[in-house]
Amino acid sequence: MKTPGGVLLSGVALDRDSQVPLYRQLYLQLRKQILAGRLAGGTRLPSTRTLCKELGLSRITLLNAFDLLTAEGFLAARTGAGTYVGNDWQGRVAQADAPGKPPRLSSLSQAVHSLRSEHFSGISYSGWDAQRPVSLLPSHPAYDAFPMPVWKRLMNRHLRKPDKAQLAYGELKGLQRLREAIAEYVFDARGIECSPEQVVITSGAQQAFNLLGMLLLNPGDRVWMEDPGHIAARIAFQALGCQLVPLRIDEQGLDVQQGVHECPDARLAFTTPSRQHPLGTTMSYPRRQELIDWAARSQGWIIEDDCDSEFRYRGRPLPALYAMDPGQRVIYVGTFSKVLYPSLRLGYVILPEALLEPFCAIRAVMDRSPSTLHQATTADFMLEGHFLGHIRHMRALYQERQASLLEALQRELSGLLSVAPVEAGLHLIGWLPETVDDDALARGLGNHQIYTYALSDYCLQRYLPPGLLLGFAATPAEQAARRASELANALAALGIRG
Amino acid sequence: MKTPGGVLLSGVALDRDSQVPLYRQLYLQLRKQILAGRLAGGTRLPSTRTLCKELGLSRITLLNAFDLLTAEGFLAARTGAGTYVGNDWQGRVAQADAPGKPPRLSSLSQAVHSLRSEHFSGISYSGWDAQRPVSLLPSHPAYDAFPMPVWKRLMNRHLRKPDKAQLAYGELKGLQRLREAIAEYVFDARGIECSPEQVVITSGAQQAFNLLGMLLLNPGDRVWMEDPGHIAARIAFQALGCQLVPLRIDEQGLDVQQGVHECPDARLAFTTPSRQHPLGTTMSYPRRQELIDWAARSQGWIIEDDCDSEFRYRGRPLPALYAMDPGQRVIYVGTFSKVLYPSLRLGYVILPEALLEPFCAIRAVMDRSPSTLHQATTADFMLEGHFLGHIRHMRALYQERQASLLEALQRELSGLLSVAPVEAGLHLIGWLPETVDDDALARGLGNHQIYTYALSDYCLQRYLPPGLLLGFAATPAEQAARRASELANALAALGIRG
Repeated sequence: MKTPGGVLLSGVALDRDSQVPLYRQLYLQLRKQILAGRLAGGTRLPSTRTLCKELGLSRITLLNAFDLLTAEGFLAARTGAGTYVGNDWQGRVAQADAPGKPPRLSSLSQAVHSLRSEHFSGISYSGWDAQRPVSLLPSHPAYDAFPMPVWKRLMNRHLRKPDKAQLAYGELKGLQRLREAIAEYVFDARGIECSPEQVVITSGAQQAFNLLGMLLLNPGDRVWMEDPGHIAARIAFQALGCQLVPLRIDEQGLDVQQGVHECPDARLAFTTPSRQHPLGTTMSYPRRQELIDWAARSQGWIIEDDCDSEFRYRGRPLPALYAMDPGQRVIYVGTFSKVLYPSLRLGYVILPEALLEPFCAIRAVMDRSPSTLHQATTADFMLEGHFLGHIRHMRALYQERQASLLEALQRELSGLLSVAPVEAGLHLIGWLPETVDDDALARGLGNHQIYTYALSDYCLQRYLPPGLLLGFAATPAEQAARRASELANALAALGIRG
Repeated sequence: MKTPGGVLLSGVALDRDSQVPLYRQLYLQLRKQILAGRLAGGTRLPSTRTLCKELGLSRITLLNAFDLLTAEGFLAARTGAGTYVGNDWQGRVAQADAPGKPPRLSSLSQAVHSLRSEHFSGISYSGWDAQRPVSLLPSHPAYDAFPMPVWKRLMNRHLRKPDKAQLAYGELKGLQRLREAIAEYVFDARGIECSPEQVVITSGAQQAFNLLGMLLLNPGDRVWMEDPGHIAARIAFQALGCQLVPLRIDEQGLDVQQGVHECPDARLAFTTPSRQHPLGTTMSYPRRQELIDWAARSQGWIIEDDCDSEFRYRGRPLPALYAMDPGQRVIYVGTFSKVLYPSLRLGYVILPEALLEPFCAIRAVMDRSPSTLHQATTADFMLEGHFLGHIRHMRALYQERQASLLEALQRELSGLLSVAPVEAGLHLIGWLPETVDDDALARGLGNHQIYTYALSDYCLQRYLPPGLLLGFAATPAEQAARRASELANALAALGIRG
């Protein structure tokens, strides 16, 4: 391939219609050829005049490319002797290409990685066909019933002209109007008396759990966790190197006495008193008092994830734990993911005074306040009365959807799947025969495009029968029969019999 | 106040127009009175019949409130003897009210807290009057020039009807179309060849730094940091307990040889090669090669924050470090905060193959993908050609704004503040006489509603003269003279003379 004039750059193909400048195209292609060994070190290139003619390039274009390649050691110019392919890059590349050990990562990364295989199946959506309905996934609200026209109108108010208030970095704690709206809402709905200053907006409840874990927990600290319990919260604490203390759930909720006996000096208790996640139990008053008493005695903290308190279909809602604790050991976490929609990415934390400043310091390190546009739209939606109306509407809709799916499941799957109505939340639990591996079953159903979560994903220790979480909120009543029969067919295809 | 029928609840005032149910109003008010000691333990309450009459309530409303109070121990019913104020809550409250030690927080929280007093002044906006122009704060783009009509039109496309694609949890890595648009953009603009699979969307660059720190660093690990350098990145690594190795900046950028001599086995180098933040230097080719060579030799990682590469006014943009490294040790971080607007909260990371899966695992633990609406709008803005047009427009505008502010500052403040044009970025550096404390000065100027950052906020070791970062991007050319004279007046008022 060598010629008296040096190697001919026949492999170079320049695209004159591309947005990539010609000099950069040439640079990238030569670099690639040299790296691939197609142009060996020491090879002499044709004169710039020849190359310009061959490639149909201006001299400045060619020199621009050669400058870059020379600076990187891919080319070398010898005075009076033209341009050669360089050798300097070779050691570097050889070294880099040496059969690689896996990269050294942090302990946190390794901890997360080791958790992943076991527990991430529950929160992975990778296998989920975006064109299909949400199927039976829990935690998904009724997208079809979201009041988009109102939402759009409110949002467009804030898209009128570009100004600093809208576009610049937001306030650290979040938009003042939204914090006021939340303080008002939680007082009315949850009996919580707090000032807007105690409310901090987060990117969903998940970010809140992580920030609170960072705030309160050191590696090795022990944390009371509901078993079965919230996966995202559990993983957040495990990633920080904490030791989980699994506590059973009975008909009154979290077994506080088990915690008091097994690990009285835990730093933190994580709980979902309004609707135990995932079982659906409401924590009784005596249990709430026991928990608050423990926190006062031990100076422990309680994270109250007020899961689905908006969607209660029977029984009186109890006030939040936060509202019951005179000792200010409870941190309240709320989210708009279900009551509005998940991709909004807005949640909030209500903090005791003592934690406010240190929480904000960590918040500032980790992330800025979420999009002002979304916060302003949500505040308007709340303050102008759409929010409570939407909740009421959804409560009625979900009650209807629950009844339809329940009835269809009981009809199609009796003897195989045992389902009972839930008082609150967005999913039923379908209890399975003892011999079924619910985790394998959920994966098998996924292959039939039926998406559910296995109860065992939520369990730390196995003491419950196997089960599936079956979301009803996103399934219109008229589709319930079809969903149930698809589920029945898939279970039959997977060889599951009662 | 006691009567034969028991205490009269004269302090109770019910608001019949409130959205708060009457039973809850009663519950909250009684609870407050008991907690405040206005109703002592053992006090007998009037009969329910009397109370209903006194308060004008139905019996069921009253009993609902009493049930709650009884369950919490605030009331006690003695069979046949009526209802009394309880005593059970008292121990709890007394305990909780005991003169409180400060709460025990995590080591991370303490580390952040100790950093805070020294370094957070630079990223706090608490004192910043929302009604004023952005003054001379650096890092703020021209809000007045943001193309809101186009943005609004694109966004409204995605607000037509509510569906799962728009409202549900987004893909872990971020919206596919946006990742494709970014991969195309960084190829054209920065010479980076990557697949959209290597691009992960984050909530701004700040979240990216934190996630990368968690991915790569253990407490005690050493990190090369540019000195002066990026505050948010530095704090992220310090919060993780890492040890910073400050490396000086000279006219070629980061002094790599200093790092090689002082700490060859650092785990990570953080650098801003396109425009050193905050000094503005472009890293030379030889330095880039030295840095890449170090990473290959030591198996260290490089985080390339491609700060303001879009806003270059002179000289040819150099390709990204990422594009120069055949060894895949560079992680590229980009953000839309300046090129679009900060409150959008969108940034991205381009990862070497080896880090992709572990990074995504940590991403999944910490937070979900940002708002799909914002990602979809940004993708449309890029793919439909508005993005490059906006960058070109802003580049010309910022060049003009820089020239105006520079000229005004040189005219008004010569001999006191030494300013030179910058090749790239959104701020000038105003160098001060050696004797001035720039940190105190920046705080003093804040009291005159003139917002700047002190250069020393960015410094780990002091080897540079004092200075101020003076943002020009948000100051229209016709306001430059006024800003400069306001600054001159404030400096005079603060007693700063050349």
